[in-house]
Formats: sequence, structure tokens, C-alpha cells
Amino acid sequence: MQPLIEAVHEEFVPYLGEGKVADYIPELAKVDPHRLAIAVATADGRVYSTGDDAEAFTIQSISKVFALTLALGKVGDDLWRRVGREPSGTPFDSIIQLEHEQGIPRNPFINAGALVVTDILLSGYQPRETIGQLLEFVRYVANDETIAVDPVVARSETEHGYRNRALANFMLGFGNIEHAVDLVLGVYFHQCAIAMDCRQLAKAGLFLATGGKLAHRNTGVVSTLRARRINALMLTCGQYDGSGDFAFRVGLPSKSGVSGGLLAIVPNVGSVAVWSPALNKQGNSLIGTLALERLAERAGWSIF
Amino acid sequence: MQPLIEAVHEEFVPYLGEGKVADYIPELAKVDPHRLAIAVATADGRVYSTGDDAEAFTIQSISKVFALTLALGKVGDDLWRRVGREPSGTPFDSIIQLEHEQGIPRNPFINAGALVVTDILLSGYQPRETIGQLLEFVRYVANDETIAVDPVVARSETEHGYRNRALANFMLGFGNIEHAVDLVLGVYFHQCAIAMDCRQLAKAGLFLATGGKLAHRNTGVVSTLRARRINALMLTCGQYDGSGDFAFRVGLPSKSGVSGGLLAIVPNVGSVAVWSPALNKQGNSLIGTLALERLAERAGWSIF
Amino acid sequence: MQPLIEAVHEEFVPYLGEGKVADYIPELAKVDPHRLAIAVATADGRVYSTGDDAEAFTIQSISKVFALTLALGKVGDDLWRRVGREPSGTPFDSIIQLEHEQGIPRNPFINAGALVVTDILLSGYQPRETIGQLLEFVRYVANDETIAVDPVVARSETEHGYRNRALANFMLGFGNIEHAVDLVLGVYFHQCAIAMDCRQLAKAGLFLATGGKLAHRNTGVVSTLRARRINALMLTCGQYDGSGDFAFRVGLPSKSGVSGGLLAIVPNVGSVAVWSPALNKQGNSLIGTLALERLAERAGWSIF
Amino acid sequence: MQPLIEAVHEEFVPYLGEGKVADYIPELAKVDPHRLAIAVATADGRVYSTGDDAEAFTIQSISKVFALTLALGKVGDDLWRRVGREPSGTPFDSIIQLEHEQGIPRNPFINAGALVVTDILLSGYQPRETIGQLLEFVRYVANDETIAVDPVVARSETEHGYRNRALANFMLGFGNIEHAVDLVLGVYFHQCAIAMDCRQLAKAGLFLATGGKLAHRNTGVVSTLRARRINALMLTCGQYDGSGDFAFRVGLPSKSGVSGGLLAIVPNVGSVAVWSPALNKQGNSLIGTLALERLAERAGWSIF
Repeated sequence: MQPLIEAVHEEFVPYLGEGKVADYIPELAKVDPHRLAIAVATADGRVYSTGDDAEAFTIQSISKVFALTLALGKVGDDLWRRVGREPSGTPFDSIIQLEHEQGIPRNPFINAGALVVTDILLSGYQPRETIGQLLEFVRYVANDETIAVDPVVARSETEHGYRNRALANFMLGFGNIEHAVDLVLGVYFHQCAIAMDCRQLAKAGLFLATGGKLAHRNTGVVSTLRARRINALMLTCGQYDGSGDFAFRVGLPSKSGVSGGLLAIVPNVGSVAVWSPALNKQGNSLIGTLALERLAERAGWSIF
Repeated sequence: MQPLIEAVHEEFVPYLGEGKVADYIPELAKVDPHRLAIAVATADGRVYSTGDDAEAFTIQSISKVFALTLALGKVGDDLWRRVGREPSGTPFDSIIQLEHEQGIPRNPFINAGALVVTDILLSGYQPRETIGQLLEFVRYVANDETIAVDPVVARSETEHGYRNRALANFMLGFGNIEHAVDLVLGVYFHQCAIAMDCRQLAKAGLFLATGGKLAHRNTGVVSTLRARRINALMLTCGQYDGSGDFAFRVGLPSKSGVSGGLLAIVPNVGSVAVWSPALNKQGNSLIGTLALERLAERAGWSIF
Repeated sequence: MQPLIEAVHEEFVPYLGEGKVADYIPELAKVDPHRLAIAVATADGRVYSTGDDAEAFTIQSISKVFALTLALGKVGDDLWRRVGREPSGTPFDSIIQLEHEQGIPRNPFINAGALVVTDILLSGYQPRETIGQLLEFVRYVANDETIAVDPVVARSETEHGYRNRALANFMLGFGNIEHAVDLVLGVYFHQCAIAMDCRQLAKAGLFLATGGKLAHRNTGVVSTLRARRINALMLTCGQYDGSGDFAFRVGLPSKSGVSGGLLAIVPNVGSVAVWSPALNKQGNSLIGTLALERLAERAGWSIF
Repeated sequence: MQPLIEAVHEEFVPYLGEGKVADYIPELAKVDPHRLAIAVATADGRVYSTGDDAEAFTIQSISKVFALTLALGKVGDDLWRRVGREPSGTPFDSIIQLEHEQGIPRNPFINAGALVVTDILLSGYQPRETIGQLLEFVRYVANDETIAVDPVVARSETEHGYRNRALANFMLGFGNIEHAVDLVLGVYFHQCAIAMDCRQLAKAGLFLATGGKLAHRNTGVVSTLRARRINALMLTCGQYDGSGDFAFRVGLPSKSGVSGGLLAIVPNVGSVAVWSPALNKQGNSLIGTLALERLAERAGWSIF
């Protein structure tokens, strides 16, 4: 595995610099686009990594996977009364579908759906407790107590998240947000600002590749059925309106974040984290996606 | 395998009669809703089946899988200039997305996309030749020369396909249909009227489970990469705007038809055909889908 | 009046050549863009005109006003069960609204609505009779037996009207077209190809300015209420998704055609026909609209 | 005039009680649905009224007419860079069009457009000053210093206006709102809570019927051109997605409010205010609209 990821890393280093780093908040715009990291955590508990694998980045929308897992643990399939399980066919921050469908987001990985998931996590807790629980969960599955929220990014998001504020208020009008919008957004922006390096991220996602079990502990996080279902959602919805193309080219469940991070699951094999900050037109990591496609191809990882 | 499919068959027989047989053309409405057939073709060339497994039905939209395979063989990835690879987020016969996106259908499994695929097959051939080639292809992969088109159903569709006629003319206006609409529809309605029983259908789809190879011949139909990619499209788009939910619950690439047929692919294991004519609200087989879900669950077939 | 229209004509002649003549059918593309005609028919029966006022052009969508009037005479307010009375907020040939609203077009002046109106006119008659009745009606209100259909344009439209064919088939699927699509389109394209010069067109529309009465006969064509209501529809819907802006700038009920013709109604005063073939981005006569705006402003004709 | 409005009042009193009072905020739900008032202010300065003509109600969306007039006075036609002039074809609080058209509302009478107008009024002023200016303007044109904001209704709206909050944040994301959302909404909800009786409202709107001049003063509020243009906007957009039907049936520029108020303009004749709190399905006064239609018909007021 180590030679393979190093070969892929080497192949794509020359292309670094292409694409465009997200600049809708100043903190993200500061990141050097010439970064590339690849890490693979395998089912036997080993972690392979290369490139800028010790540099932390905020995981942004990848956090939606962990928040969903935690919320399903809290309310079970009742969650699906408030969020759908279908690809939306529209951009990640679109509001159109919400108006057509009475405030029920199509899936938990578009922003609207993630806000409802966060709203569910808030039930019975203060915002500080909620983000604490989520952080604790991520540390637990990653087996790493050093993972933390980047407070500067969290604050920066809070100041610019007009579209998310619109989505939350819109759903509140339909009764599909139950807490004050400021509280929901506060938790949401902090969950997006959870910072990890690629080794940590690969380890954090590994339970989805191992039928819900933790390689480093003798216990399961979720049932095998639930792990598979989360993977199914990642495959059909994890790359927003680029999910079909990603399934076609890469063939793995995955979730992307606007910071250039990618988490992909290879069932029964392991989990992969890739990071490269410059984005393609769809807002996903340009080089990261290409590197992941090559890695999956060379390793023969397609689930199809 | 045989005891398993018989157990599933037995479990769902009591529910036959629920749902509603498609009645938009008289020929489909005549079918007895109390039908249930299950067939599994495994990678080693065996076929297991039970229930009404010798009764032929028209495969309808399942034919889109075979037409796509043939068209990719003909024009390769140039096909994707005229059809997308994303879930549409809208019903199978919706025209809205076409207007927003200049006549380029989102994927080859919604009706608009399938019409473009058929239009591609027509290039350089007469309609009669085109449907002949498609039929020949299906016979070849199924290893069964007796498969034929049901002419009564084909004619009945021709008389009622107003929506498909609208879709084709609409795309013609954007230059994304190249042949006369009557010719395209003629071939399309005949491909939908290809009739098979479940054993034939399972065998016809098997090459998608075996990396593109034919179990009964020493040759490949398509490359492994292409087979995987067709499977990926079936997973994200094969059940129209129910694809996300189907992936969540069943976890297999599949394609449904309005006659109540279902084809599902279990990579490296085999292919499954299920048939039960009464439909759920999404227009897919009600009991067939439930039986397939149970079968996949008991066999542990999820790709996730 | 004569000096006024001549002054406006003179003012805009220097701008002729700007804009773009419709070229979706070859026959329209042949027209010299350096044409400008203005005619005013006043309630007392006089007609004033200037410029290329003796040159006939096909009235295209302006024919929708006469077809609607005739259809209302035939079925009365039952017509509104099949067509709405609201601005669509979308382009003249959009199909999106039809899918959202079950095949009921928003108003009789978008293409879909006009096709339903034509379908109504066909009830009980052959296409040839139907177009004959419409032509007879236009000749009657214009008091001019020489008005005729341009058969070359009619044929040319028939060969290129894919979008209209899509609209008609789409509505047929919803049961809102009752005759064969070919027949409906045949009549529709012939009604669009009715050719008049500006003097004839102004005279033909005059009954809408005179409470439904004919200046040249001692009789009414429609009731005052109906004339007012047709004017209301022209104001809110007559310029498609430019109707609001036209009302804002010109302040008169009007209907435009893709050949560069315009018919405007000044209640209790008279009717105005303007023609200049080169179009603006919305597909309405560029110089014709500007000349009409100036004329209305100088004459103080706004209904507001 | 007095006998006419009394006759219309008498005719519709028996129907009071039908329809449904707005209940999205508690304060509006408290109003007795058995109310009906009609007032007509004529160009000569007289005011006729009947029914509950001395009972004040909050004018809600009718305030958009006065806010637009004031904003046009402030920034002139620059306003149209940020708001369109077309009917939207969608409900008054729809957000879909904003996403399709980059945060530019279709017209100043849907909620999104009105929020931009309010945002314009805020430029250079504090919220308290802004609402003060608007109130002063309404008092000036109505010639009545007693008109005031209903603070209880204003507060109640503030607590429930999630949809408006979503619209404002959404436009802020596109840069089409320049002030803090809380400030814009604060002013907006206060302008909606301006309370008048029908006599006051008819007088306040009269300048739009008199070419922008004030009957009670020797001066103009706006130019004749601007008055006409505001009337044109009221006709095409004043009743949201019921504007076409209202123009068809009543034939007058008008603006409705969710409290059951209606303001209609009869150019060169006068202005009409009607109030009856119970609403039809479109959210406009049920009996008020019918009474206005009858009054316009009997008085022969249609502008068409």
C-alpha cells in the first residue's frame, strides 16, 4: 500500500496549483494550494500515508458523515421523517427543492439536510454540549484525543454563512428546524471547523469500512446494516450533484469538503483520506479527486 | 441458493395482489397481478429460479441497460457528450431538466436519456436493423435465441407514447436527436417490448456481474471497467428518483421496468431477476422490490 | 395623428439595422431588417400610416389574439377550464410550467396556451375549415377580403416546429389536446402565417379599442366586457416574460410577433400596428417597440 | 357614488364569514371576519365611504406601494438594478426565482422585492428614522397626521417572519441586501403594521389616480410618468400570482394585503379602498375582491 500511495502522490504533485482554493471565508483562502496528502487506514488497523499528511485542515462537509452517524444513534430511523434519502439533482446549497417539498431536504449531505441533522443533535443539549459530543465521537472513532475545532475558521464561517442562515430559516418556517437558527448554525459551523490531518481522517472513517466495528477496540460503533446504509448514502449523495459522475469514475462511497478534503470508503478493505485545497468547478478537490480516482483504479477498489 | 429463493418466494406470495398493475397501455393492464418470479444466475453459469419463472414479460425500461451497453460499444465515451451521468432528482419522464440544461438528459436511464441512446443506435441503420441488432445482442448475452419482441405491446406503446414523443421533439429542437422522431420512437417502443422470463433476464444481465465476461462463452462483452461503470449508473440512476432509497435499502445496482421486472447485479456473484407486475407509487414492482430486498439481505449481497 | 406618426417614423429610421431578424425558419430570415411601418386606426374609422405600410408580413403570434377571440365566441368561458389567465414568468415556449401544472398552460398567449386555443377551434371542423374560419374572421374585422395566408411561411414553420410539437404532445399526454397533434400544428402554423400590412393589422385590431364594436359596420364583434378582458390579457401576458416591462414603459395592451409586428390597443381611442423585423433579445421588434413607446408617450396614450 | 358603494356593501354583507382570516400571527387572527368597509376618494378631493369605514387595520403588503414610491424618490431608476419589473409567476413568498436569477427579485411587490426596497430606504438612516420617514410620507399623502404603526402587530410579525428572514439572508448572500437582516426586517415589519381605516387608505393612494398630484395640496408627489408606472406595476404584479386574473375580472391597478385590505386605482377618477379580513385561497380578501369587482363593473371603471 505504501508504495502505491507514494506513486500516486508523485504522479499528481506536478499538477498542484491548478484549481482554486475556496475563498468565501478569509481563513480558507489563506491555505497554500500546493498541498497534497493521502492516507489509507486498512481494516487490520494499519495506517499508510504520504505527502502533507501531518497538516491539519478543517473537514467542513465531511463532518456531515459523523454528525449523521451520531444522530442516527440518537433517534434511529425517525431521522428519515425529517430528511430524505435521494440525490437532490441540485447544488449543495440550493433552496429550490425545499420550497417544492415542504421544507424536507432531499438527503443529509446537502447543506439543508445537514442542518436538520444538527438540529436533531441539539435536542436536549446546549450548543456547547452538542459540539462537545460530536467532537468526542470523532475522537473516539479516530482513536485520537488531540482532534479539535479550529475556532478561527468557526468564527469566520459564522460571519459569512448567509445562505445557510437562509436555509435554516426557510425550514424553520416549515417547522423542520426546532431550535433557534443561531444555535443550529453555531453548532453547524463548529462541526465544519473540526480539524484533522489525513491520517486522523482516514482512521475516523474506518468504522464504515469494517461493518461498523472499530479496528482499535473490540466493539462496534454502529451495526453493519447501518454502516452499509451510510455508505450507500455517501455513494448516491456524498458529492452533491457530482455524485453520479464520481460513482462512475471512482466507484466508492465518499464525502467531500470545501477545504479540499475527501473521505472514501472501501468496504471490507479500509478508508482513504485525501487532501488538496484547490477545487474544481463543482467545489470538490481538483487534484484530490483525480488522485483518489487513480488510487482506486490501481488498487482495484471499485465496489462495482 | 435454490432453498433461499424459494423461501423468499414463499414469504411474499401472500402479499400478491397489493399494488397496481400499469394500465397506461391496455396490453400491460391485462397481466395477472398475482405473479411472482425470482431467478438468480451465478458467476459459475448456473441459474436458479422459482415461481412464475417461465412466464415471459416485456422488460420495458430494463432494456435501457442493454441499449446503453450496445451504444457504448458503438460510440464509446462520445456518448457522454449527449447524455449526463447524474441522478436527475425528478421523475423518469420529467421534461423540466431538459429545458434547464439545453436538451442534455441527466442520465441514460430516464426516458429522455434512453431516447438519445436509441438515437445513437440508429446511426447508419434502419429502424428494423437497429432493433434487430439490439435483439441479437440480448440473445447473445442471454445465450438464448428464442428471446423476441412482443409485437402487440410494441404497437400499443406506439399509440400511447405522447410523453416520449414530447421528450424526443423537445430534444430535437436542441439538436440532441438526430433521426426522425417517429423512427426513434419506433425502435424505442420495440426495445421496451422485448419479452423474457426471469431466467432469461438473469442470464442476460450476468455479464455485468462478471466483469464484462460471458459465463457461457470464453469471451468478454465489455471491459471490466465498462461493466463497473454501467453498474455505477444503475446504482445512482437505475430506479429514477427512488435510486437513493433503493441503494439505502437493497444496496445493489439495479434497473426496474414498468411491467414489474427488476434486474439487479451482485458484482462477482451473479445477477438477479425478479418479476411481479403490481407496482408501488414510484412505478416499480411493489412485491418484487420487497422480495429483492429480503433476498439481498439474507444473502448478504450489499455492495456497501 | 399623421404628423405625429411621421415624426416618430423619422426619428427611428436611423436606427434600422440594429437587432436581429428571426432566422429559425429560412422564410423569416429573408426579410430586409431596414423596414419600419406604423399605422393607427382610430375609433372614428380613419387609418393613418407611414413607412413601409403597404408591405405585408406574417403576423405570427399576433394571430393568437384573433384565435382567442374566435374561440371565446365558440365556447365562451369554458375555455378557461383548459387555459389559465396568469403571466407565466417563463419564456414563450417554455414547457416547465406545463409539467408543474398538469398540462394547463398559464395563459392563451404563450405557445402552449395558443395551441390549446387552436385545438378548441378545431372541434367539429377539419383543419382546412378551421383555418378558413379564422381567416374569414380576420378579414371581417379588418374589413378587407384580400388578407391571406402565406403558404411558404406556413410550410417552413411546419418543418421546423419541434418545440411546438413537443408542447402539443406533452399536453396531449395530460388530455388537454383533443385532436391529432399534426392537425393542431397544421392549423397553428397557418394561423401564424396570416399575412397583413400594418394598415390591415391596425384595422383588424380596432374592435378591441371600441368596446368590441366594428367602426365600419353597425354591429359588435364581442361584448364590451369581453373586449376589455382580452385587452387585460394582452397587457399582463401579451409580451411573454417582458409584459411587465412593456406595461411599465408603454402602458398599453399589446401583442408581439416574431416577424417584428406589434399590435397595441388604446381603449376608446384606436389601435396601433407597428412593424420592424429586427428583434431584441426577448424576441420582440427592437425598433418597433421603441417607436411604439415614443408614440404612446407623445400621444399620452397610457391606460394608467 | 355614495349610493353605489352602499348598494355594493349591502349586496355583500350576507356573505361575510366566508373565507379565512390570516392566522400566521396571533394578532391578525383576532380580527372579526364579519367586517366590510368601502371607501372611494375622488379626484376632486371628496371621500365617500360605508360599512366599517372607521375601523383601522394594518395595511400589510399595501405598504409596498408607498415604500416603492418613496424609494423611487430617493434613488430614482437605479432602483431597477436591484429589482425587476415582471410578474413572477410564483407565490408572494417564493424563493425559487431568487436562486434562478442571482438574488434579483422579479418585482417590488413580492416579499423579496419589497425587502430590497426597504433596504434601499435604510441607506443613510437608522431603522427608527426610516420607518419614521415612511410614516411621515403616508401621513402626508393621506393628509392625516393620526396614522400610526400598530406596535403589537409589528412585534408579532417580527417573532414569526421566518420566511422573510430566509429571503433576506438569501439575497444578502448574493449581495442584494446591504444592511443587517435584522434591521431590514425590523423596518419591513413596522411598515406592514401601519394601520389605517379605509377612508385614510383611499386618500393615501389618491395621488396615483391624479397623475401624481395631491388633491388637498397644490403640489405633486411624483411625476405623472412615475405615477403611471407604479400603476402599471400594480396591475401586472400587485396581486402576486393572481394578478392576471384580477386584471381580467376587475381591470384596475391594485395592491392587496394579508389583513384583507385592498387599494385600487382608477386613473383620473379616484382611488378605492376595500377591507374585509377573511381571505380566499390566494391570500387576498375574499369578499373585498368580489365587492371591488362589482363596484368597478357598476361604475364602468376598467382601464381596458
